[in-house]
Amino acid sequence: MVLAFSFRLHRRDGEARLGEIETPHGRVRTPAFMPIGTQATVKGMYAEQVRATGADIVLANTYHLMLRPGPERIAALGGLHRFMNWPHPILTDSGGFQVMSLAALRKIGDGGVTFRSHLDGTMYELAPERAIEIQLLLGADIVMQLDECVKLPATEGELARGVRLSLAWAERCRRAFEHAPPGRALFGIVQGGDDEKLRQESARALVAMGFDGYAVGGLAVGEPQDVMLRIVETTAPLLPEDRPRYLMGVGTPDDLVEAVGRGMDMFDCVLPTRNGRHGLAFTRFGPINLKNARHADDPRPLDADSMCPAARDYSRAYLHHLVKANEMLGAMLLTAVNLHYYQDLMAGMRAAIQEGTFAAFREKTREGWERGDIPAL
Amino acid sequence: MVLAFSFRLHRRDGEARLGEIETPHGRVRTPAFMPIGTQATVKGMYAEQVRATGADIVLANTYHLMLRPGPERIAALGGLHRFMNWPHPILTDSGGFQVMSLAALRKIGDGGVTFRSHLDGTMYELAPERAIEIQLLLGADIVMQLDECVKLPATEGELARGVRLSLAWAERCRRAFEHAPPGRALFGIVQGGDDEKLRQESARALVAMGFDGYAVGGLAVGEPQDVMLRIVETTAPLLPEDRPRYLMGVGTPDDLVEAVGRGMDMFDCVLPTRNGRHGLAFTRFGPINLKNARHADDPRPLDADSMCPAARDYSRAYLHHLVKANEMLGAMLLTAVNLHYYQDLMAGMRAAIQEGTFAAFREKTREGWERGDIPAL
Repeated sequence: MVLAFSFRLHRRDGEARLGEIETPHGRVRTPAFMPIGTQATVKGMYAEQVRATGADIVLANTYHLMLRPGPERIAALGGLHRFMNWPHPILTDSGGFQVMSLAALRKIGDGGVTFRSHLDGTMYELAPERAIEIQLLLGADIVMQLDECVKLPATEGELARGVRLSLAWAERCRRAFEHAPPGRALFGIVQGGDDEKLRQESARALVAMGFDGYAVGGLAVGEPQDVMLRIVETTAPLLPEDRPRYLMGVGTPDDLVEAVGRGMDMFDCVLPTRNGRHGLAFTRFGPINLKNARHADDPRPLDADSMCPAARDYSRAYLHHLVKANEMLGAMLLTAVNLHYYQDLMAGMRAAIQEGTFAAFREKTREGWERGDIPAL
Repeated sequence: MVLAFSFRLHRRDGEARLGEIETPHGRVRTPAFMPIGTQATVKGMYAEQVRATGADIVLANTYHLMLRPGPERIAALGGLHRFMNWPHPILTDSGGFQVMSLAALRKIGDGGVTFRSHLDGTMYELAPERAIEIQLLLGADIVMQLDECVKLPATEGELARGVRLSLAWAERCRRAFEHAPPGRALFGIVQGGDDEKLRQESARALVAMGFDGYAVGGLAVGEPQDVMLRIVETTAPLLPEDRPRYLMGVGTPDDLVEAVGRGMDMFDCVLPTRNGRHGLAFTRFGPINLKNARHADDPRPLDADSMCPAARDYSRAYLHHLVKANEMLGAMLLTAVNLHYYQDLMAGMRAAIQEGTFAAFREKTREGWERGDIPAL
């Protein structure tokens, strides 16, 4: 039986929302954090481990997978879920953001984007229709429209052009998606940079078209947190109550709590994985840099009370050694620590919304971060 | 209760020996293969995973650990077993071999060796007494004497000097080891390169001194397999029946079978771990290079009948993709595949010796390698 996509909003606490998404590959509890599996793997993690951190869904990158190994190949192998041994929900981005940040010689036209692969120089075209086709070949449960993500700072003219182009592509993606297998979902993406009026225009037009969910894109590109939150505050109320809301590329633990408090449901970010590979651990008591020499003789684990084996069963001295020695196990353990912490944070928020204590949870969580790490004696 | 070191020879089948070593941290079934945990980690593997492949013991490198994080630090943290979350037996080498291959400005004298760290240029001295002290600080179950490993090809004069120096250091290591905690073992190392007379001289002198076990060193340094096996054939019969025999740095799966067939009990080698990181899988049907484009569309696992999840549950197409994309998970999975195969091979040899069918096992194993991998249709 193929489960249809659906979203149920269970409860609200202020603006914060507790919900549940159903997909053909299972359930996603929201607010949800999606670990990033760029090249069909969450770097340094076994799929079972990702699941064990509490993740319901992962994100995979269309740009990377269209270049290597190729969507037709993955489809012939039974789809991305089987390819990467992750039988749970998958969201794929549309490739647009990575084309802007990674590819060379990119050229944007009304028809789509042309670019040169950063791997081998091959020229590719990515039209809205092809972006949908690729994501359906991969077998994504949640498919994102192709959009143009304009870099900040930008002029109003540049931002307006991005909004208009993204809306035109949204409509073309919607039509292309009509051939999708049952149960899959297509999300539209609100653009408009830091311009509230353009954001409103973009959101209203997308809602008028009608999507299974709505993303807020073009943030987490270097702007201050207050700008990001202001745009979320402007945009969220314009999105339908009964559809999931996805804040793309966000963020720090604090960003997540603040954005959930403003009505967002889904998130993805490279921070827990990328920073883990570079020696930084996210914990209840704020970030801890394991490269720091103060850990060299510290027999304590990162968090003795954590349910995460990597945070509980390894000394800081050992983690410090692994990071300094550039050992894979250091990256593996700290990625696990961080993904576990992010999922714990989401689970904490979900429980608090359920109990109507989100404000108190936010306060208590902040207190932990502000207390900070206590050095060894 | 501290278990004393002991070795029991259970059974012989031709020259092949089935035995069991007891150490303060548990039992080692021989013939045994020791995965290499150079910097207090088997690269890309969780300690529990290493155990799950069937490994009873790992090897750690004195040279690397003396430079970073330092033996006194590891001792203060409770020893190497606790540091690396491996509560099972550990053998440490003496550091001599790595000084020769990695350090700069090395100078060998009667008193020991002086060298410059390859990490930061600091000068270190490694005398026989310090080599023992470091290994005891690490808490090794099996400690190796400091020796001089002469590179091949070498003149008889160079080899003879290496043997004399190694014997003098063996005696000093033996005296230094008199202060070791109960239960630890010290192994002497037979040197002499490819010179059978020097090998005999070295072996006889070491046996006269008396060690808990005997290693054959200075091989697996690029010489042809027949030279290596000839030296093993010359040396093994001179070593006491009731002590374990360790062939250092060996080898390929075929080397292991041939050396077990000539009476050797213990082995270590970087091949399964290093080659795994470079895309090569060892299997019952010989080595398989996952970089090869023929795997790109192959949905089959490496070995559907393996008990190793990494060999059984991932398609070759996915492994190929991970290796080509330089993803950590590729190195992690292939390291697991290889260590599992090596341990399966050792377990197969132990079972065969137990049943008196070692010759048939060797034949059958060779047939598998010679059949080779069958490409996809």
